[in-house]
Amino acid sequence: MVSKNQIKLINSLQQKKYRIEHQLFIAEGVKVIQELLQSKIVLEQLFATEESFSSFECSSKTAISQQEMKKISVLSTPSSCLALFKIPKQNKPETSGLIVALDAIRDPGNLGTIVRLCDWFGCTQIICATETVDLYNPKVVQATMGSIARVIVNYVDLKDYLNESSLPVFGTFMDGKNIYKEKLPNEGIIVFGNEANGISAEIEKIIKNRIAIPQFGTIHGTESLNVATATAIVLSEFSRGN
Amino acid sequence: MVSKNQIKLINSLQQKKYRIEHQLFIAEGVKVIQELLQSKIVLEQLFATEESFSSFECSSKTAISQQEMKKISVLSTPSSCLALFKIPKQNKPETSGLIVALDAIRDPGNLGTIVRLCDWFGCTQIICATETVDLYNPKVVQATMGSIARVIVNYVDLKDYLNESSLPVFGTFMDGKNIYKEKLPNEGIIVFGNEANGISAEIEKIIKNRIAIPQFGTIHGTESLNVATATAIVLSEFSRGN
Repeated sequence: MVSKNQIKLINSLQQKKYRIEHQLFIAEGVKVIQELLQSKIVLEQLFATEESFSSFECSSKTAISQQEMKKISVLSTPSSCLALFKIPKQNKPETSGLIVALDAIRDPGNLGTIVRLCDWFGCTQIICATETVDLYNPKVVQATMGSIARVIVNYVDLKDYLNESSLPVFGTFMDGKNIYKEKLPNEGIIVFGNEANGISAEIEKIIKNRIAIPQFGTIHGTESLNVATATAIVLSEFSRGN
Repeated sequence: MVSKNQIKLINSLQQKKYRIEHQLFIAEGVKVIQELLQSKIVLEQLFATEESFSSFECSSKTAISQQEMKKISVLSTPSSCLALFKIPKQNKPETSGLIVALDAIRDPGNLGTIVRLCDWFGCTQIICATETVDLYNPKVVQATMGSIARVIVNYVDLKDYLNESSLPVFGTFMDGKNIYKEKLPNEGIIVFGNEANGISAEIEKIIKNRIAIPQFGTIHGTESLNVATATAIVLSEFSRGN
């Protein structure tokens, strides 16, 4: 059973200010929850319907009805399980390796997909400008498909971070050098910009290495790629070797 | 002004059966509508608020209030313009060039993003298994960002299509050959599978060329990529040249 107070708490966690207040976030679905349970992230409470109740071996497990699940689920088609996890403490970000930096990504699906991509390509550190959508937004958690358990995401003043870093800084621009022909390093920071406005002028000034994904379509083709698909192509190029 | 009957019609077009009945689809936002106006697709009616009314030069243009826009918009944050277009007649699909085939993609955002990607990479034909989400679903139209005007999408019996084609057929599988090391042709059909189940067993049998995007993360990393990001990486590899 889920109490009225629990329903109220869980619903409030859809908003960032209550996530900060309670230091909790929501995860839904067997796969995402199982990956989080295997990580260092600490479970607060798990709710599951009969369908998936036996899939989990953990304390703090509560059996609830489908009707109750509908009241706490964030999804339009509720999953069979929902868990609350403690937001982990933010450590100092990495300053070596291949790092993805996001300059104010707004769409939760894009951030979640980028976290999943970084996990695939073994890029364990994402740096977000403070204006970027919150990692613990339930839609972001969902889109990571569990990769949130393995990729470290820090929110910082991106300008300061880039200025203080000794790594080469890359960014994608229409007039950049053809990424397919560049010799790309194993270490570096790759900046991706906001969905509507791209990389901000302030951050652009710090980027020494301007790269571009060439367009193969007609001259009347699309002007841009979705930021998550652009990230996919760029990480693939940095990883594949020349 | 928008009449009660028009509101009823527009709202009904969120459902596939009414799109088929009326042979109309909805497009929202200045960019998407302008790209469609420049294409061969025929405008039925355009509604715009003061904000974007003067952006369009076309007949069948109606000025409406923001309040009216809220009643017809599909988006949670309504755009300043919404148009109805006639669904174009479906021609016979292409049988040459680089073709993307989708085996039952269900998420509208994924299909729209793949249409936009194909436009970028100059891949003008997409073949969808009949179970694939409808191209004229408003969320698909939105995610194409106008590329729907340039990429041809056909819904067919995918098994028959692949069996009848003389092009080499590719598909991504965990046990496929490393895509970064394969010599990839300029022509061929690349099959991508459903979000949850991948490529169906029936279609898998027809695929002669099994390719894989290698994973660079830890062994405990994510098991899969989102289908739109996988499409991005595969199209990039087919296009970049070796």
